[in-house]
Amino acid sequence: MEPDGFHMSPEEFRRHGHALVEWIARYRETVESSPVLSRVAPGDLRAQLPPAPPQEGEDFSSMLRDVERLILPGLTHWQSPNFFALFPSNASAPSMLGEFLSAGLGVQGMLWATSPACTELETHVLDWLVGMLELPAAFLSTGPGGGVLQDTASSAVLCALLAAREQSTGGRANQEGCRGNLVAYTSTQAHSSVEKAVGIAGVGRDNLRRIPTDDAWRMRPDVLEVAIRRDRADGRVPFFVSATLGTTSTLAFDPLPDLGRICRAEGLWLHVDAAMAGTASLCPEFRALQAGLEFAQSYCFNPHKWMFVNFDCDCFYVTDRAALVGALRILPEYLKNAPTLSGAVIDYRDWQVPLGRRFRTLKLWFVIRHYGVQGLQHHVREHVRLAGEFAELVRRSRNYELFQPPSLNLVCFAHKRGNAAGERALERVNGAGKLYLSHTKLADRYILRFCVGQAMTRAHHVHAAFQALEEAGDA
Amino acid sequence: MEPDGFHMSPEEFRRHGHALVEWIARYRETVESSPVLSRVAPGDLRAQLPPAPPQEGEDFSSMLRDVERLILPGLTHWQSPNFFALFPSNASAPSMLGEFLSAGLGVQGMLWATSPACTELETHVLDWLVGMLELPAAFLSTGPGGGVLQDTASSAVLCALLAAREQSTGGRANQEGCRGNLVAYTSTQAHSSVEKAVGIAGVGRDNLRRIPTDDAWRMRPDVLEVAIRRDRADGRVPFFVSATLGTTSTLAFDPLPDLGRICRAEGLWLHVDAAMAGTASLCPEFRALQAGLEFAQSYCFNPHKWMFVNFDCDCFYVTDRAALVGALRILPEYLKNAPTLSGAVIDYRDWQVPLGRRFRTLKLWFVIRHYGVQGLQHHVREHVRLAGEFAELVRRSRNYELFQPPSLNLVCFAHKRGNAAGERALERVNGAGKLYLSHTKLADRYILRFCVGQAMTRAHHVHAAFQALEEAGDA
Repeated sequence: MEPDGFHMSPEEFRRHGHALVEWIARYRETVESSPVLSRVAPGDLRAQLPPAPPQEGEDFSSMLRDVERLILPGLTHWQSPNFFALFPSNASAPSMLGEFLSAGLGVQGMLWATSPACTELETHVLDWLVGMLELPAAFLSTGPGGGVLQDTASSAVLCALLAAREQSTGGRANQEGCRGNLVAYTSTQAHSSVEKAVGIAGVGRDNLRRIPTDDAWRMRPDVLEVAIRRDRADGRVPFFVSATLGTTSTLAFDPLPDLGRICRAEGLWLHVDAAMAGTASLCPEFRALQAGLEFAQSYCFNPHKWMFVNFDCDCFYVTDRAALVGALRILPEYLKNAPTLSGAVIDYRDWQVPLGRRFRTLKLWFVIRHYGVQGLQHHVREHVRLAGEFAELVRRSRNYELFQPPSLNLVCFAHKRGNAAGERALERVNGAGKLYLSHTKLADRYILRFCVGQAMTRAHHVHAAFQALEEAGDA
Repeated sequence: MEPDGFHMSPEEFRRHGHALVEWIARYRETVESSPVLSRVAPGDLRAQLPPAPPQEGEDFSSMLRDVERLILPGLTHWQSPNFFALFPSNASAPSMLGEFLSAGLGVQGMLWATSPACTELETHVLDWLVGMLELPAAFLSTGPGGGVLQDTASSAVLCALLAAREQSTGGRANQEGCRGNLVAYTSTQAHSSVEKAVGIAGVGRDNLRRIPTDDAWRMRPDVLEVAIRRDRADGRVPFFVSATLGTTSTLAFDPLPDLGRICRAEGLWLHVDAAMAGTASLCPEFRALQAGLEFAQSYCFNPHKWMFVNFDCDCFYVTDRAALVGALRILPEYLKNAPTLSGAVIDYRDWQVPLGRRFRTLKLWFVIRHYGVQGLQHHVREHVRLAGEFAELVRRSRNYELFQPPSLNLVCFAHKRGNAAGERALERVNGAGKLYLSHTKLADRYILRFCVGQAMTRAHHVHAAFQALEEAGDA
């Protein structure tokens, strides 16, 4: 490999690589016994690190020792089977191997020409997923649409917003700058990334209307319709709606058929964010939740949230790739090449904010092939079943009550004796280290969220978690 | 690890992991013999892939076989010692191991609380680099500034632009939207990411002034000054200058001291992009190139371009982190936690466009510790020395002449018999597969770019490359 200088020799790479494989395997076998939520205080790690970097190189084994000694205590163990917070971000073994291979190949996929397989595998696997999730055929790359990997749903909604912004202004926002009269819409329950995106894109956070939700936290189409009408009357230009399939707080599903009809009638771009819940559509019995998706101009879901692909991996689809490319394309001389100029290939750099891109599809491809469609379906069903079991325990609890029926793999519940009791119980279980779950606040209630999805979570973890919560709730 | 369901068992992970270590080691030992630039035609890979995903899971070994059989022919081998195109993107063995470990741990660094070590190691290593590169102390996290990892320099310049936009509008652009009167400046030689960023941010591409360069392709301060004055006279609001240390085409260095004084006098935010060349500052003898950096409010360079860290890894610094956070911060209920509310910790989600982030510092930390400062210096000097050797060969060439003296690890040269001859020679060597280099166009000349920096590139590769070019140039 590298025969001279200060490089790691091929023999050393093999030796340390094999040691690392063993280390990761052991980490995953034993992570269950670590406190899930890190207990360090701010500054603890930095106080133990040398103030200056080493002048001379060190052996790899000393780094692995420091990971064990210094880093592990400072980690919140997302891959623990007792991690029930936020969203799973479940990383599987085939996915890790895919990421490692991507690093080992070290190729760039910014242009088709800089590594054709990197682009074509991505397009192909994203087309596979259209079938696997029964998404609208308009998202297939074989028509005018297509899919691309983004890092996160935040970047996806920004790209969707930019494409919509250009379409609605005939490319003028990109050229001349925003004018402060565009208006976007989302629900009060939508992810903060929508607000971040309108700020970034120069549309302005004040020009994002947060449409109220119904009693099940779903965006209200009647209010949206009125808001659009009022904005038009005020001389503003409504152009974009971001709907959510599976909101962050309670996994609520906006009514796409109604929202979609309004967007179509009014000529607004409909973006749909299904970051975690999108994975559920692997199973036919959950696909009713995405009814109305055929109205959307763009869509995203994150295999890094619930489909066993390690972060980052967001699948982003558009029905009209020309609109997206039109918003982001630049072609300087040093990137010109025959395939690009022929128009016969996809250059994904024009589908995203950054220019460079690594070979991220490998891990997604490996996960789909390792599990097969049936294996992925099995685990999604199992997670939903376990969430249902937990909800049953809550129904019979002496301390807690369901805030709402479970939604897929998420259970939202509250302490019967009020918010302070719920907050104290959460602090107690998280502080004890045996499990980790997070919270939200809705309708003046402090809601505990229990989200199932880690690769190593089994029924007994769910039952033990409930037991710990029940005991903490007694105090 | 995962004892049931469709998961890869711990034993299988060990077996396939060890096989993959061997595979990657062998790939790097043999990549030299592969055609550097892929020879496939558009659609070749997709035609060989199954139209639908497998219903049942497959063995990992079949995937590795397909990588060998289907993927490798479709790759342009960036890690080949005969890759001299664009920029090196050199990936070292310790970096790959760091990426693999990051995937194995699978933690999220969006908040300090979601894995404190992930945040603190990043802040710490970025502080190390301030010393290693002798950057201005204002970029240290111990004062009001600090560093953060971005994916690319494109994202870094966007974040810098957003911070500057908010500062110059008192936060109004974020809230109310852009108004089309802001003006940004960069040189005609700046990277396309600056233009992309002003488009995204709603400033408008028409409001980016491309300041002409002098005869060494450096931004002309006198023209910048006049342009700012003219824009102010027209009622516009100059707010941002993006200067380049090491331009994409010829690795030219903008005159920071002069630009900096203008920015300071006029109250403009100065961003400095040193994507590839920044690494050279590891060596004291190259630091004169960054004189004037003390005028900058933000700076970035990419260890994934020339410092042996696999993509993606961009180090982005600001002198005033409050300005950056002010432009990107949102705090929804579900992300509230005691350390965040205390103000005592860094939450890096507010320093970037996406919310989620993986543990990217591990690979950077491993690279610095494996090589040590001296090892990294050695290799940078060696690359510069090899570029100098190549330039010597060009000086004595029967076909080529230097377009300019070599700049660090880049040699720009042209065919003596004109552009068509140069273009044909480039097509011939790239098509033959023995090496890969790219081109640019300047002053109506077709320039060949020879950039040295791959981990495995040695003197004999450089000499063989020149030989191949000389032969291709004869025809």
